[in-house]
Formats: sequence, structure tokens, C-alpha cells
Amino acid sequence: MDKQEFFSDRAQGMQRSVIRELLKITAKPGIISFAGGLPAPASFPVDFVRKALDSVLDKEPHTALQYGPTEGDPRLREDLAGIMKEDGIDTTPDHILITTASQQGLDLVGKIFFNPGNTCITGSPTYLGALQAFKSYQGVPVGVELDDHGMIPEKLEETLARLEEEGRKPRFIYVIPDFQNPAGVTIPLERRKRILEIAGKGGYLVIEDTPYRQLRYKGKSQPTFQSLEPDMVLSLYTISKILLPGFRLGWACGPGWIIDKMVMAKQAVDLCTSPFNQALTHAMLSMGALDKSLEQTIELYGNRRKLMLECMEKEFTGIDDIHWTKPEGGLFLWLTLPEGLNTEKMFKEAVDAKVAYVPGSAFYPDNDNFRSMRLNFSYADEGQIVEGMKRLGNLIRKKISATG
Amino acid sequence: MDKQEFFSDRAQGMQRSVIRELLKITAKPGIISFAGGLPAPASFPVDFVRKALDSVLDKEPHTALQYGPTEGDPRLREDLAGIMKEDGIDTTPDHILITTASQQGLDLVGKIFFNPGNTCITGSPTYLGALQAFKSYQGVPVGVELDDHGMIPEKLEETLARLEEEGRKPRFIYVIPDFQNPAGVTIPLERRKRILEIAGKGGYLVIEDTPYRQLRYKGKSQPTFQSLEPDMVLSLYTISKILLPGFRLGWACGPGWIIDKMVMAKQAVDLCTSPFNQALTHAMLSMGALDKSLEQTIELYGNRRKLMLECMEKEFTGIDDIHWTKPEGGLFLWLTLPEGLNTEKMFKEAVDAKVAYVPGSAFYPDNDNFRSMRLNFSYADEGQIVEGMKRLGNLIRKKISATG
Repeated sequence: MDKQEFFSDRAQGMQRSVIRELLKITAKPGIISFAGGLPAPASFPVDFVRKALDSVLDKEPHTALQYGPTEGDPRLREDLAGIMKEDGIDTTPDHILITTASQQGLDLVGKIFFNPGNTCITGSPTYLGALQAFKSYQGVPVGVELDDHGMIPEKLEETLARLEEEGRKPRFIYVIPDFQNPAGVTIPLERRKRILEIAGKGGYLVIEDTPYRQLRYKGKSQPTFQSLEPDMVLSLYTISKILLPGFRLGWACGPGWIIDKMVMAKQAVDLCTSPFNQALTHAMLSMGALDKSLEQTIELYGNRRKLMLECMEKEFTGIDDIHWTKPEGGLFLWLTLPEGLNTEKMFKEAVDAKVAYVPGSAFYPDNDNFRSMRLNFSYADEGQIVEGMKRLGNLIRKKISATG
Repeated sequence: MDKQEFFSDRAQGMQRSVIRELLKITAKPGIISFAGGLPAPASFPVDFVRKALDSVLDKEPHTALQYGPTEGDPRLREDLAGIMKEDGIDTTPDHILITTASQQGLDLVGKIFFNPGNTCITGSPTYLGALQAFKSYQGVPVGVELDDHGMIPEKLEETLARLEEEGRKPRFIYVIPDFQNPAGVTIPLERRKRILEIAGKGGYLVIEDTPYRQLRYKGKSQPTFQSLEPDMVLSLYTISKILLPGFRLGWACGPGWIIDKMVMAKQAVDLCTSPFNQALTHAMLSMGALDKSLEQTIELYGNRRKLMLECMEKEFTGIDDIHWTKPEGGLFLWLTLPEGLNTEKMFKEAVDAKVAYVPGSAFYPDNDNFRSMRLNFSYADEGQIVEGMKRLGNLIRKKISATG
């Protein structure tokens, strides 16, 4: 018997993450990598972690090291409800589920909503981890085009109409409204309202994934989808980008009937998220670690973003038909090369030239767009950004001459 | 539209864990509870945690607080391979996947093996969390009767033959060989070989779940299924019962082609298990925390087990047709009451009498056995065990008079 036959249909379709495999290649010495999505270690609030540890081990070792409730530490749910309230969301702790970071939020969404073959709407491009989570339940993501202001409502309407006509009504609309991964674009208020109106008309749930929301370097914060339509929006958050990723801690916030089902699903998935890491996070939040940490992170990433944009302006001068987004926050920007270039094909040459990115095709539900690349500006330091952009500019010019 | 219709078929079948809901009832003051499955907080190696934290935060804060590989921290995989080798398993770190405790191991098993409606073999009774994980992928657990030496090979053969005849060939055989949860029974070597022989003949994988293996208080350790047939056995472990549960850390060990697929599935599920908790665990293992902790835990639980058995002997004297297992290790024993009594029906009276257990029916794939209950001997202290067994004895006598 072929060993593949032991596996479920969904498992037979699974593949290793393109990005994770690619990161192994780009980890070689000398390569300046804009490929990863890692926070800068310099942004980690190590001193707060240390203080929180002392407090937790002194005051509550026996509960912090024990099993905990599936829903999460009640104190942390309270903290997070408070944070959400400050952001204009009228919620309570019992509408919050602590997850093993937001990737688990996506996994639970896949698990509770998809029967094999069910469709959902995503951006085109969108977060690769969401595509993986949804596909792992044999969900079928259908992409809707983005522009510099995120998902285009008219394209959304067209796509919904087409899918309904085909009898493939989507289970939900998945959006990353703030500084989208990978495109770096943010949906303005009017468009948020329009998308919700379209969703409301068709009776669609909206899954709002907003891991970078607090990392805004310029412009004005836009209301969350959840604050606009609490009854039809489930929001996913994580501390990975705003505090630190190593605890694997996030949360979902939304209507009680969805949170309830997610709790049931989570019981079978991992019983509970680490109570130790939850106690630490609660202690850190009580000490004001989030505001302090955000302040530093926003300064650090804001400067790197600014520098990268300046370098691109300089290095890409004179190249026709090149375009990049100017994110107001987050970790990524999106570069689209002139017609005829293929970021997937030129990836090996880039690595040879000692600069790395993620080919854009990885982020498309159908892997069918080859002109773009994702660039991360949070991880590489200032010197690397300057040198890396120079290498990238040279490579692009070289490719243009070769194709022209 | 009915809100239930938003959910996938698998989610519509999900229910809250009976035990978790029941634990909320039994957490009232004054109730002596043998219902939970919690380790004793006194067994937690708090000093080692503190030392490990100092070491990790001094030496490697930037990697421990960052994202990590899906497979797990290479140092920890090496540690665990070493621990498994000492236990007679010839393995290497690349055959080990770090999981978010063994519940995630069960979830990944469900995810990669079950198409909706596929059967698997479990003990009858078996671990409730496994039933939940398997059912959450619409797997159909089919129970095979246990006796005081675990799963009965003849019954296994019969069940396999019947299922094959019905065209419902199981995806795997799930066993908990050591101090089974809930029954407390251990499979002797000869029977392990017999089960493997039956599995081999039919081409079945064996999933070996052994969270308490190191917690043996008497008798001789039996070889793992994996050491006997490495090519067809996947083993699931956790540090929850042997070190502490609050880190949510476990591991799977088995054939490369299964571990590979589990890695792919885990990427979409939670990217990686907390690198911070992995670094701490590695540091603790390097400091010898496991041996030291096991020594204390074995003494503590061994005494409580002995005391509980003595109390049962005393309190149940003169009751006919009552039977309980005498576990050589682990956390649980299994009490079967005289014909006519129903542990589910008498649960409310038990709580009124201020003693709690888990009704046995929760652990049967078909919830169709009502004479048994699971008793935990790791959590309640010595005084509570004496008093709790007295209360339980009185209740049983009262029920017998009422029915007789």
C-alpha cells in the first residue's frame, strides 16, 4: 500500500509552507533578507518579561504552571477586552477567546466553517498562513483584487454574484484591513462600510485579521470592522507583532455564538493556551509593557519603513512601470515590477546577488501573479536596508536590460 | 438563517467536554473531588523553572522570544531523542516533532488520517480527549473491550474482522499502554506483541499515547510499542504529567513519513510551539530537572495511590460485586459498581454528599456503560483521600439499599 493512502484527503493536499522553506535558503551568511516576517529582536520587552516572571513565580506558580480554562485566563480576557474597548469595540471578556496566537484563530475558523469544497473570499494577494489554514480543511479561497486601498468593493460584489450563481456561496469574507500582509495597504472607513454593506446584504460573516493594527507610523487609525458591525464580524489578534511572538499568544473576539463554537473546537485541539504565558502576559500588561513596547517598536519600524521608501525612491529612479505601496504601518510593502519580469524566476539570481524577498505568487489563492514581491522592513537594520535596496535595484535593472 | 447552518458539519457535531463542564460543578468549596486529571501543584519544579528562566533570559532572550521552527527547537528534539533512547527506542531528533502538548498530537493525528466517517480502534473505555479530537474530524472511534491487562487481543481481532467485512477498515489502532486513562491498566509485553502482530497482519498503524509512562510506582516497565515495531507506531508524549502542564509542551515520535506530514499540518495550525517554553524546557532538562522532579512526583503520587487503595479496601468491605483496578502507575483508577447502580445518575447525589468523580460513560466511544467511574489519586491530599473515600463508600451503600 502506498503510504500516501494512509492519509486523509485533506492531508494529501498539504504542502510545506513555501515561505518557511524559502527562509532556510535565505538564512545563509551575507544575504540581506527582506523575505521573513519577523519582528526585530530589539523590539522585545525583555526587561518586562523578567519582571513579569518574578511576579508570576512569586505569587502564582501553582496556577501558572497548571492547566487552565480553554477560554483563557479570566484576567487576561479582561485586559484584552479593555484594550479592545479603547479601540472603540464595545465588548466583554466572555466574547474573547485566548488562542495559541492568531494562526490558531485561523485554524479554528477553518475547522468550524468549512466543509470540503466550500469557498471563502480572501484578498488577492492575502496572508499565506490563512490560505494554508483554510486549504487544510479543503476550503477553497477565492481571491478578490486589491488596490492601494485594499479589497475593491466592486470586485467583491462581482465575485460574490458569480459564486452565488455557480452555487458556491462563500462561507465568509476574510479581510486584513490594516497594513495588509503582504500588500501593506489599509482599507479606508468608507470602503470598510461598503464591504460590510455588501456582506450584510448577502448574509456573509466577515473575518477580520488585524495583527499589526497597533503598529501605525502615520495617518489616522480607521475603525475596525468589528466596531462597525459587531454581530457579523469575528476579529483575530495576536501579541506576536505588538509585544513578542515567542509566547504564541493571540485572541479572537466576536459574537458569542461563534466564540462558543471556537471554545468547543479548541478543547479538542490543545485544551488551553499556555497558562504560564498567559499569566506572564497579564503581568506585563499590568505593568504597562504594551504601551512602552509599542512606543519603541513604532519608532524603530517607522524609521526603517521611511528609510526603505527613501532607498526605493533613489534606487528605482528611471525604471518605468515599477510600483510600490507606501504602508502607513505594519511590517511589509509590496513591489510590482515592470511587465515581463518574473519575481519567482529571478529569485535564484537575487539570492546569488545576496538579497532576498518573497515572490508574490505565494500570496495569491491561485499562485497566478508573478510580477510582485513582498518586502519586510521590520527585521533588517538600517545599513542592511540601504545596501539591500541597492542590490535589488541593480538586479532589477539588469533583468530589464536582459529582457528589453 | 439558523446560525448553526453557518457551521461545518464537523462543527455542528461538537460539544463542550463533559469533564470540563463537570469540573466547574465540582470546584465548589467543601467538595472533595477525584474528578479532575490534574497533577498536584506540589509536584511542580518551581525552583528549576526559576533557574531556567534566568539562564534563558540571560543567554538567549532574542531567540527564545522570537518565532521558531515548526519542527521544534533542535536542542530540545535532541534532548527528547536521548530520553527515548534511554527507554529503548532507537530514534533520532528528526523523527521527533514538538507539539503544543499531546492533545495537539491527537489533533494532528485526526487531521492527517480521517476522512469523514473513517473508523479507528480505541479502548472501551479510552481517553476522552482522544475521542473528542478524533470526532472533531468526523472520525468514528470503535471501542474494543479492556480487561485488567488493557485491550483484549481477541476482541481486537473480532472487531477488526467485523469492520473489514463491513467495508469500514479502521485508519489506525489507538492504545494507551501504560496506566491507561481512565482505567489505570497496563498492557503486558506478551499482549503488546500480540496486538502488534494483529496490527501488522492487517497493515494497521498503531498510535501509542503514553503521557504517564515515567510515573510508575510498582512493577517493571514494559517496552513501548514503538521500540517493538518502529515502522508502524507513532508515539505521543507530553511533559504535562512528568514535569508540568502549564507550558503546553509535548512531542510525537515515529516514522519519518508520518512526522513529515504532521509538520506540514502543524505549520497551518499554530506555526510553532512556544519557543520560549521550549527553551525553558531544554534548560530545565539540561539541569537534571526531569529526574529530580520524577523522583518527588513518584513518591508523592505513589503514596496517594497506596492510600486510596487502602481506603477503598476498608470502605468497600462487604459490598458485593464491586471491582476496582490497581494501577502500577499514572493518575487514575477505575471503579465498577454493583449491577443496577448508575454512576451518571448518582452523580448529583455524590456532589450533594460533597465527593466527586467522573462518570465512566464519558470515556466510552458510545457512552453506553454506566456502572463505572474514574477516580484520580494525584490531586487530592491525604486527608481528602481518607474522607472522600468514606463519603463515597457511604453513598454507594445508600444506593445499594435503595435499589435492593
